[in-house]
Amino acid sequence: MVVIMAPEATESDVEVIVEMVQGVGGKAFVSRGVSRTIVGLVGDVEEFGALNLRSRPGVLDVVRISVPYKLISREHHSARSVIEVGGVPIGPDHLTVIAGPCAVETPEQTLTAARMARAAGASLLRGGAFKPRTSPYAYQGLGEAGLKILADVRAETGLPVVTEVIDPAHVDMVASYADMLQVGTRNMQNFALLQAVGAATKPVLLKRGMSSTIQEWLMAAEYIAQRGNLDIVLCERGIRTFETATRNTLDISAVPVAQRLSHLPVIVDPSHSGGRRELVLPLTRAAIAAGADGLIIDIHPEPKMALCDGDQALVDSDLAEIARIGAELSALMGRVLTPAPDASPARVPSAL
Amino acid sequence: MVVIMAPEATESDVEVIVEMVQGVGGKAFVSRGVSRTIVGLVGDVEEFGALNLRSRPGVLDVVRISVPYKLISREHHSARSVIEVGGVPIGPDHLTVIAGPCAVETPEQTLTAARMARAAGASLLRGGAFKPRTSPYAYQGLGEAGLKILADVRAETGLPVVTEVIDPAHVDMVASYADMLQVGTRNMQNFALLQAVGAATKPVLLKRGMSSTIQEWLMAAEYIAQRGNLDIVLCERGIRTFETATRNTLDISAVPVAQRLSHLPVIVDPSHSGGRRELVLPLTRAAIAAGADGLIIDIHPEPKMALCDGDQALVDSDLAEIARIGAELSALMGRVLTPAPDASPARVPSAL
Amino acid sequence: MVVIMAPEATESDVEVIVEMVQGVGGKAFVSRGVSRTIVGLVGDVEEFGALNLRSRPGVLDVVRISVPYKLISREHHSARSVIEVGGVPIGPDHLTVIAGPCAVETPEQTLTAARMARAAGASLLRGGAFKPRTSPYAYQGLGEAGLKILADVRAETGLPVVTEVIDPAHVDMVASYADMLQVGTRNMQNFALLQAVGAATKPVLLKRGMSSTIQEWLMAAEYIAQRGNLDIVLCERGIRTFETATRNTLDISAVPVAQRLSHLPVIVDPSHSGGRRELVLPLTRAAIAAGADGLIIDIHPEPKMALCDGDQALVDSDLAEIARIGAELSALMGRVLTPAPDASPARVPSAL
Amino acid sequence: MVVIMAPEATESDVEVIVEMVQGVGGKAFVSRGVSRTIVGLVGDVEEFGALNLRSRPGVLDVVRISVPYKLISREHHSARSVIEVGGVPIGPDHLTVIAGPCAVETPEQTLTAARMARAAGASLLRGGAFKPRTSPYAYQGLGEAGLKILADVRAETGLPVVTEVIDPAHVDMVASYADMLQVGTRNMQNFALLQAVGAATKPVLLKRGMSSTIQEWLMAAEYIAQRGNLDIVLCERGIRTFETATRNTLDISAVPVAQRLSHLPVIVDPSHSGGRRELVLPLTRAAIAAGADGLIIDIHPEPKMALCDGDQALVDSDLAEIARIGAELSALMGRVLTPAPDASPARVPSAL
Repeated sequence: MVVIMAPEATESDVEVIVEMVQGVGGKAFVSRGVSRTIVGLVGDVEEFGALNLRSRPGVLDVVRISVPYKLISREHHSARSVIEVGGVPIGPDHLTVIAGPCAVETPEQTLTAARMARAAGASLLRGGAFKPRTSPYAYQGLGEAGLKILADVRAETGLPVVTEVIDPAHVDMVASYADMLQVGTRNMQNFALLQAVGAATKPVLLKRGMSSTIQEWLMAAEYIAQRGNLDIVLCERGIRTFETATRNTLDISAVPVAQRLSHLPVIVDPSHSGGRRELVLPLTRAAIAAGADGLIIDIHPEPKMALCDGDQALVDSDLAEIARIGAELSALMGRVLTPAPDASPARVPSAL
Repeated sequence: MVVIMAPEATESDVEVIVEMVQGVGGKAFVSRGVSRTIVGLVGDVEEFGALNLRSRPGVLDVVRISVPYKLISREHHSARSVIEVGGVPIGPDHLTVIAGPCAVETPEQTLTAARMARAAGASLLRGGAFKPRTSPYAYQGLGEAGLKILADVRAETGLPVVTEVIDPAHVDMVASYADMLQVGTRNMQNFALLQAVGAATKPVLLKRGMSSTIQEWLMAAEYIAQRGNLDIVLCERGIRTFETATRNTLDISAVPVAQRLSHLPVIVDPSHSGGRRELVLPLTRAAIAAGADGLIIDIHPEPKMALCDGDQALVDSDLAEIARIGAELSALMGRVLTPAPDASPARVPSAL
Repeated sequence: MVVIMAPEATESDVEVIVEMVQGVGGKAFVSRGVSRTIVGLVGDVEEFGALNLRSRPGVLDVVRISVPYKLISREHHSARSVIEVGGVPIGPDHLTVIAGPCAVETPEQTLTAARMARAAGASLLRGGAFKPRTSPYAYQGLGEAGLKILADVRAETGLPVVTEVIDPAHVDMVASYADMLQVGTRNMQNFALLQAVGAATKPVLLKRGMSSTIQEWLMAAEYIAQRGNLDIVLCERGIRTFETATRNTLDISAVPVAQRLSHLPVIVDPSHSGGRRELVLPLTRAAIAAGADGLIIDIHPEPKMALCDGDQALVDSDLAEIARIGAELSALMGRVLTPAPDASPARVPSAL
Repeated sequence: MVVIMAPEATESDVEVIVEMVQGVGGKAFVSRGVSRTIVGLVGDVEEFGALNLRSRPGVLDVVRISVPYKLISREHHSARSVIEVGGVPIGPDHLTVIAGPCAVETPEQTLTAARMARAAGASLLRGGAFKPRTSPYAYQGLGEAGLKILADVRAETGLPVVTEVIDPAHVDMVASYADMLQVGTRNMQNFALLQAVGAATKPVLLKRGMSSTIQEWLMAAEYIAQRGNLDIVLCERGIRTFETATRNTLDISAVPVAQRLSHLPVIVDPSHSGGRRELVLPLTRAAIAAGADGLIIDIHPEPKMALCDGDQALVDSDLAEIARIGAELSALMGRVLTPAPDASPARVPSAL
């Protein structure tokens, strides 16, 4: 059961609801999105019915929900959501491109990659400082030093930063640098991490587990929402199948399927799906045409020198084509390619 | 090793090559496509080298090939092929749409569906008379009576016919009615059937096995080519994965991957991939944007009454949108939506 | 709906039933097993009810069945079946081992392998004369010449022969040499072939499709049964998954699951599952312990020279261990290791 | 490169090695197992070669390793390891059974389940206090209160405790109650958690990720080993495939494959693999016969009332059969069924 608060509801309206629910032995989870506050109830539905919550101040509606995910479902929230990341929208009217290097390596590499990202039509910068790697002997990222580089490059280029967090204990620290917290494919069912980012004040990019069903993916988003953070963007990045010709199998159908089930935006990662540079352009086109709300693309100034996933990174000669595809196909899909924020010279730190 | 004959080569030029190869204990497989004749050699490569085949009359080139499929590879035949089906081209400059009912049920249902297919932008008619069904108690198709209906509807509408063959013993009979022979997903490694359609004089639509790798799919095409029939169109129709939200998982990456490895056209079946009507439009857009050379789409006048796969069939209200997508996205991809042949009144049989 | 005939029912009793069913527009499929005859009905169940078939001579019972497979289900035939192959039983009281070379290559290789099979505890000889190979350039088998070798080796060693058939048109010919017809994994949904072996008079070994569900496997067996041949043995041989450390993933759970759903015997192929010789022994032990009714194992006198699947073939030094495992684990499972038939000198042809 | 210390090596011998490695810009990871200390080196192999480490005091051997996992590989440590859990061995000479409830619910339920575990031949008690659940609305476990129940039941029954940890921040707390830390299937690539249990002083039970390859599983174990904890037991618990007849597909081949690649013990979870009570017995037999070093089995006094996975829990009537299988099949495999430790009345707290 879910209580949907009216736009004009006050904090104390919400508190009253929570206390009433707890008073009959239930639990109430308050989720605050940009455009709405929702209270999810867990406990005895009959007891809740007796509370007559619909008549309380600030309550817009009380709904019973039949799907296993509630807060992120379209069942009672049919309008698709817009999530803002450092002022940049991701949602049904835009095509928003996130681009950057798989891993932050140096200030120069990151700054160059950010400029390449702008040239490719991106309005958000991606880059990993904490890298979850299959081998303990592979490059694990720069850690907080990498986050500082990202913040400096944001100041220089104006692009808000999307970066991965892999440990619940790091969430606050990463959130202090980043504009959006990425939960990677291997952590999609790391419930401690989901709950931690659910308590954070920055939006979350939730990658689909490489062998998770769409329903499990939505349930993982529900974990985040249930802790109070409704600013979630879903990212399809390819699933594990028997096929070895590609790194993963891009499940292009997941875009329309997830969009029908959830009001959250859905973007696509064509770089990790195909795992090869020459597949990025066709998969990017397919993603936009399937209705994706955005893309997240690997870019690297010198892929051969990349410490991570160089095979799939786009290079200079690809950027104009990606930007052209983004603009032309967006128009055909009734969307606007999200413009990059202005680079504000005032924000440039002297050190860079 | 493969001998590529020149366009002006004569039959006797080819025979000379075959005899020379057999003379040193090898086997020679002659494949005649619309635009070229190729002789594939199996046996001792050193013996073949000593024959100096390159200097024989009518020989354009002799190549050694390193991939496991030879005749269909782009390694030594980089230009992508155009296959003609009853005069309708499938290849790199066109987007060719095949549409029609999953199963032929009655003359009226088939004729209505064919007219719907034209309205959707199709230039070829699909329809099954022999249906491979998981259950022996499911509808198995009308057999030869269904083929006659298809031939009548072709006469009425001008649309060449694509239909499935499931038994090697039926190939000649089916080929006498059809313009293109379809090999279904469950038969992709039915080697007796592949060899039989390889000996037929009609082009072949080879659906990917639902759990076949791209390499196995190309090897299956090679079986057909090796028997002399190079007029093959590959069809991606979704693979089997752990995901159950869709009937199959459309492997959209297979389109660019197969096109890089083989010169054969690659089309997509968005109906069997998603298995649900509402997914057909987004998957159709994705397929065209990924570079597919065509589509094969289920259409039915009354899906609720369909004897087979009604859930995924498009209906009247979808046709204009499919036609619009086909036209607009084709243009963006530098292709022409293949026009349907004229309906020739002279071909209409009085019986219909 | 299924009509189960009494043991004493005559042919004319069966014919009466068939005619009554056809008289109300239904279809009747007569299946004759070693121990029972069953008539499967397809059509209008209410019409059938009005026929009062239960009261006809020779009818033991008439049952309505709720699972999608009827004739092979345990729902109304709870006793597990015993199938006899050239006098050798496969069923719940025995552990029956089939062994031999993947492909018949020469008379000497086949005879040596058959003697190795006996030493390993086998009572049936396997060997392929028609090989379904992924590549058209791989060894395709000796064809009918290979069947003659198998028949000669049977005469020499007394071991009945299990061999694969890949073309419906070959079924009668192969059945004239073989004691059991094998349908391979790639043909599990080759419905024309299933129907052809369903009309044959020899028992059938039905391998599970490498990506078929257990339900699809049982439906394929139903195709065979529906055409009148109930002498079917199911064979689990590994399924296709994301794991590449083994050739296939042996689905050991399929043994108890299929045995609960169907009365047919279930055996295991540890050679194709693991694809590596060192895995054959542990997988053989696991199969017996899981309750398998038998095994089919690759053996080759000189695996390095094998034209097919040499990596997984057992060699001389493995045979005693396999025989020991078969004997000891059978006893623990309450089974008897099926003894090999006597080698009858009288049957030895002079030519060998 | 790995430095293997001699049994008599001192702490300062190890420190010398670490400092030498760091002195040339490398990293050294010290792993201390029950029977050996190993120092894994990451950095420039040529620099390390110049250090002539083999001649230093306390060094037994220096080896270069070609597989991607080093510390857990059998390449240079061919003897299979024995891991002790609260004094109970898991290794090549024993069959060790872990049993208990999926989730700790009450003291009574846990104590009853522990007594059932002993009756089933178990020598270790499992039970979850922190439950990773797909849905945020499902039962999440009792947390620390559950750990206290487990500790009380250990005192009462003498069975050491195996329990799951899901948050790196909880590792020390859980380790203060438990004898073995379980890392669940969804956390197999939660690298922050792997590193945390790698720094703990209790042995680790590492479940295979439900869609992880065997190589990825071994790499995850390497993460733990690299942080200094070599007391790791691997657990195969079924993988995700297209088959839906079972909850997961038990990859029985993974037992011999992992045992050949790694010196760590490998056990099997037949309960989560099949997901159904009637499959637990056949899968248990298969696991032992395939060579598993142990089992982990769900048991519940009242499965219908279980808060988690009741469908797969064994009940009273199954216990004697499991114990009999464990004893008889162990003997056949040359193993001893590990006896349960004595229940020490002195350890019973008055509170229970």
